Amino acid sequence: MRAFVRYLLIVTTQPKTSTGRIAIELVQPLQSSAVWPAKAFDGEVIPFVIQAFKEGHDTLAGELVICDPSGAISREPLRKTGEGLDLWQCVAQLDGVGEHEFHFEVWTDVWKTWITEAKLKLAANVDSELVIETGAVHLQRALAMHPANRIIAAGFKLLSDSKQSPIERFEKLVVGAASAELARLPLEESETHSSTWQIRVERRRSGVGAWYEFFPRSEGAKPQKGGGFSSGSFKTAQARLSEISKMGFDVVYLPPIHPIGTTFRKGKNNSLKAEQGDPGSPWAIGSELGGHTAVHPDLGTLEDFKQFIARADSVGLEVALDIALQCSPDHPWVKEHPNWFSKRIDGTIAYAENPPKKYQDIFPLNFDNDPAGLWNAIWDVFEYWIGVGIRIFRVDNPHTKPLRFWEWLLRKLHDAHPDVVLLAEAFTRPAPMAALARVGFQQSYTYFTWRNTKTELAEYLTELSTESSGYLRPNLFTNTPDILTEYLQFGGVPAFKIRAILAATASPSWGVYSGFELIENIARAGSEENLDNEKYEFRPRDWAKAEKSGASISPLLTRLNEIRSLHPSVLQLRNLKTHWSEDEAILVYSKHLPGRFNQTGLDDSIIVVINLDPHSVRETTIHLDLEAIGLAPDSAFEVSDLISGNTFKWKRDNYVRLDSFSEPAHVLYVNRHPTAIDASETIGRLRKLAVGAGFEKVET
Amino acid sequence: MRAFVRYLLIVTTQPKTSTGRIAIELVQPLQSSAVWPAKAFDGEVIPFVIQAFKEGHDTLAGELVICDPSGAISREPLRKTGEGLDLWQCVAQLDGVGEHEFHFEVWTDVWKTWITEAKLKLAANVDSELVIETGAVHLQRALAMHPANRIIAAGFKLLSDSKQSPIERFEKLVVGAASAELARLPLEESETHSSTWQIRVERRRSGVGAWYEFFPRSEGAKPQKGGGFSSGSFKTAQARLSEISKMGFDVVYLPPIHPIGTTFRKGKNNSLKAEQGDPGSPWAIGSELGGHTAVHPDLGTLEDFKQFIARADSVGLEVALDIALQCSPDHPWVKEHPNWFSKRIDGTIAYAENPPKKYQDIFPLNFDNDPAGLWNAIWDVFEYWIGVGIRIFRVDNPHTKPLRFWEWLLRKLHDAHPDVVLLAEAFTRPAPMAALARVGFQQSYTYFTWRNTKTELAEYLTELSTESSGYLRPNLFTNTPDILTEYLQFGGVPAFKIRAILAATASPSWGVYSGFELIENIARAGSEENLDNEKYEFRPRDWAKAEKSGASISPLLTRLNEIRSLHPSVLQLRNLKTHWSEDEAILVYSKHLPGRFNQTGLDDSIIVVINLDPHSVRETTIHLDLEAIGLAPDSAFEVSDLISGNTFKWKRDNYVRLDSFSEPAHVLYVNRHPTAIDASETIGRLRKLAVGAGFEKVET
Repeated sequence: MRAFVRYLLIVTTQPKTSTGRIAIELVQPLQSSAVWPAKAFDGEVIPFVIQAFKEGHDTLAGELVICDPSGAISREPLRKTGEGLDLWQCVAQLDGVGEHEFHFEVWTDVWKTWITEAKLKLAANVDSELVIETGAVHLQRALAMHPANRIIAAGFKLLSDSKQSPIERFEKLVVGAASAELARLPLEESETHSSTWQIRVERRRSGVGAWYEFFPRSEGAKPQKGGGFSSGSFKTAQARLSEISKMGFDVVYLPPIHPIGTTFRKGKNNSLKAEQGDPGSPWAIGSELGGHTAVHPDLGTLEDFKQFIARADSVGLEVALDIALQCSPDHPWVKEHPNWFSKRIDGTIAYAENPPKKYQDIFPLNFDNDPAGLWNAIWDVFEYWIGVGIRIFRVDNPHTKPLRFWEWLLRKLHDAHPDVVLLAEAFTRPAPMAALARVGFQQSYTYFTWRNTKTELAEYLTELSTESSGYLRPNLFTNTPDILTEYLQFGGVPAFKIRAILAATASPSWGVYSGFELIENIARAGSEENLDNEKYEFRPRDWAKAEKSGASISPLLTRLNEIRSLHPSVLQLRNLKTHWSEDEAILVYSKHLPGRFNQTGLDDSIIVVINLDPHSVRETTIHLDLEAIGLAPDSAFEVSDLISGNTFKWKRDNYVRLDSFSEPAHVLYVNRHPTAIDASETIGRLRKLAVGAGFEKVET
Repeated sequence: MRAFVRYLLIVTTQPKTSTGRIAIELVQPLQSSAVWPAKAFDGEVIPFVIQAFKEGHDTLAGELVICDPSGAISREPLRKTGEGLDLWQCVAQLDGVGEHEFHFEVWTDVWKTWITEAKLKLAANVDSELVIETGAVHLQRALAMHPANRIIAAGFKLLSDSKQSPIERFEKLVVGAASAELARLPLEESETHSSTWQIRVERRRSGVGAWYEFFPRSEGAKPQKGGGFSSGSFKTAQARLSEISKMGFDVVYLPPIHPIGTTFRKGKNNSLKAEQGDPGSPWAIGSELGGHTAVHPDLGTLEDFKQFIARADSVGLEVALDIALQCSPDHPWVKEHPNWFSKRIDGTIAYAENPPKKYQDIFPLNFDNDPAGLWNAIWDVFEYWIGVGIRIFRVDNPHTKPLRFWEWLLRKLHDAHPDVVLLAEAFTRPAPMAALARVGFQQSYTYFTWRNTKTELAEYLTELSTESSGYLRPNLFTNTPDILTEYLQFGGVPAFKIRAILAATASPSWGVYSGFELIENIARAGSEENLDNEKYEFRPRDWAKAEKSGASISPLLTRLNEIRSLHPSVLQLRNLKTHWSEDEAILVYSKHLPGRFNQTGLDDSIIVVINLDPHSVRETTIHLDLEAIGLAPDSAFEVSDLISGNTFKWKRDNYVRLDSFSEPAHVLYVNRHPTAIDASETIGRLRKLAVGAGFEKVET
């Protein structure tokens, strides 16, 4: 109490400074920009780090204090890390959508400070009696604050017992109950509150989800007499939804569903001339039948689309729509609002180009000529589809539009519809990619597709899970209609497995574009795109036949999504930690979630060991940082491979052998309770718990 | 003009966003903290870096705009660096003490954008006529802005000449005068102004100076009959000032000059018992004769001290005083303000201790008990000495006092006496060392003393000149009364030379503690301090005799300070760049100052090549990044060794041989005008220029 009164006195009589009695500076989570606070998704577990110090030799202690949007307060004790660096950290889970506020409280722990000093002085027999008397005064103070506390009273009595030697009294006290009691009821001095910062918590799907991209027009497309296909539709494509759901995906993302222009329509394989029956690219949006708020008649009516959404919902899938802010020359806006486009010197509307290449089927929008008109028209497009029931949008090439437009739009969306999630397809330079995330895109495509070697992946996954994690949430797609990397083109089935395992386990959000499971790996010569690209033609696929013949890796995708639903550690981003392997192609990383953040109450740790060379069998020794997965450095433990079902006895250093031609990776669960249950039982138990807790349902 | 009107229109009709039309973010100079803006010293040359980008393929251009405290505006063009990183940079020199404001202006360079596009399209023969017409419209616009400009008019005529082919017209134009004219008078679009930031420019001595520390009581101390010495005084010590000045130093720093306590006074070599005649440590401040505002009677009167300051001033030296906020048990404050100290439980005042060690000759101050009283009393101490004429203070152990106290004091000092410079002796952990600099200390002692290997020094000098340069100004001391490193203890004369060359050339502020030039390298056993430490006894030295016998390296110190006064590149901090050498002990760094920042108008570049192993002769090849010193990568040039006088023909890769036993280092001047002048002439000419410009006088 006296300390508190003294503290108040100091606060009121000392001149105002930004620095508190104890200096506290936030290190992490970094605030993403001046525009937005730091971001998190509902349920995300976040490391908090401060730099805090006081002059002198006091033992400090502290807490993180979080105020959630409902006003509920939670506290996490800080622990010192990195001797000599004055860093203090803790991890906390943010539950509840909205703005969370947090600050830190740091103080001198009077009792621990005394213990340290007393040990040194008593050992050197310096002022021994005085030291003990000082301890007694501290206990007296504690007793004044907790008068009924018999443990403290007993401690005080012990210290005051002059029949025993100072060292005897001290030693009995230190190992005794009084010290434990004063750890629980600390005597505080110099208590300092830091500034308050914010974190915006968005709904769980903004950070966690398995995405599946497909073209509804291909599903149910039927060959026609005389060549060509009849288009699939929302009705025929509905059949595919339960299959996608069975594979464990959460989101189906559809390319634009609007009428497609006919002027300069692209033909098969991006040819400049479309043949009769070529459906055109869905990204050439707009015809006399309508623009960004219309539905392509071949796909059906708006009512059909609503039914498609309802059907998806009934099997646990959310529908994500594509927003591509560009027009075909036939888009109604071209006639109605010619000033929403750029004009060339000859009065014609400028088509898209990357000189000397022309994209005459696309008119880019001009965001400068009539911002009030165009920006609000785009807002209306979002409002329209939100009204139809869409809450997730995948935004095509946001980096080709002004950043300030996105800032404006995302703030408006956040205010009106905080549950809306936008995924930025910004395959561009690092600065604009980061800036789009900073102004509020909930998710981002990343450079993951082009990071293939161990060094590249270790660095990049670390960057994504640390430095940029406060503002950029990665959605790791294995492939897209635009991207069939050389790695996939030339790595055979193992390459597809490797990339799926990486994407599904390294990031809480991952995705595939349909056909991935069928190992569609033939590219158009000299390009990074599939041959006979679905963007320009119908691509019906015989899924059942492929699965039957074993040509599909959908069982692997299913298993990966199952692992994700069973292991909440995988659905966190900031817990990724790489480990050392002696082989240049074997990458090792872990994800660990302490039991207090897991609904089962169990620690959940996954170790991924993956051979990145799809053409090899490799054996090596890997070295784990066991503390990073919550184990003592000398632990021996059991790991269960969640893909093969094998079980191994592991410790810090382990031999591994990975044959890319059969199973290129271990996805290992650290089985902390191996007695009497084997791997399959563990999985069975976890699955039961997971279903019981309604993991996947709760969050949507 | 149209562009400008359009820009205004956009600004006024677009919704408000933090992002501008072009996204601009400050990268460097980092703002040091919420408490202070970034720092610079008068005349400092600073790199400015932004990240700036716009969507699309526009060619951007931009400027840094600085508003100095008088309101004068200067502009520096930005250039793009690091392809793909969207970084733009420039360097600017900040002249004039006070708050400088700066922002950036970035725009689309319409003409350059057109040139790029036209090249691609004309080469592919895509829309050639239209391309040329578009160029003509741009020139027409330029002509409307500059109607009398005949060069632009001629360009317009050329482009409109349909008798020539588009390619002919374009090629004539691009190599012609019109393009040069439009580089000078750019056609701007999307012009965007960034936020405005601040830099605080402090007087030059806050960043630049050569310091010499000495104990006035030793200068003129005379052996007494029966042992012991009579004390030297300000009067006797004055004789030394001209010698210090001749060595080229700028600042003499004196340990505390106050009365010294007698209670628990320390004897020779830090013994607990002082003998008769032991003068005591000057840091045990205060006796019945007075405290922090009194002068030790052995040194003389206040009047004597004022004369000492005047004498120093007359030979170009500033006097720096020590501020040690602690008291001997005999300090008047102990009786007058017992609550300014901590009390132990037995009612006695707590002496300093690092348990179990006791420092009973020192009472630390308690900054919490009566902040209004104590803080203002300390303020009065500063005010007192400022009144006496002191403008530089070296602060003893600031990290053992609350950071918030320094924040308060430094703000008050800045407001009342912006010319006051405080050097923080914070030999402590990185966090408090940085924090003290951030709250406003003008200079800091650093870890330099303990960085000895090539890797350590390369990393640390780079950190000091980049990362921390916006808030922490290093003062590289070779030694102090508390620090005689193992490197100096065991490296012989070469070690002293090496450390002096490093300190004097790597940082614009450096210092030595007297005796360094005499290679006083015998330590008290098991300590990092000199044997017979001057802190506890009189140490008169026979300077003349040492110089005569060649035992003193004062000629080297003199030469180093001369090099500093002749070469303004050395007096900058942020221009240090390390280069690659193949030998593990040979460190290479350069300092380059473009001619426009030099009063002589000449580029000034110094290359230091130094053998860090004091026990060896080493030969190796070093590899220079010539662009870092303003030379083309394939340049051949002459370098003059400013220490030995030798001249070499150099290029990118150079053989060096350094014999630590004779000359451990080259300090090379890049002689860009070698014809007809040899090294000594160059030096002579530069010296004349320097003296003519009054380099050293101007700044004090």
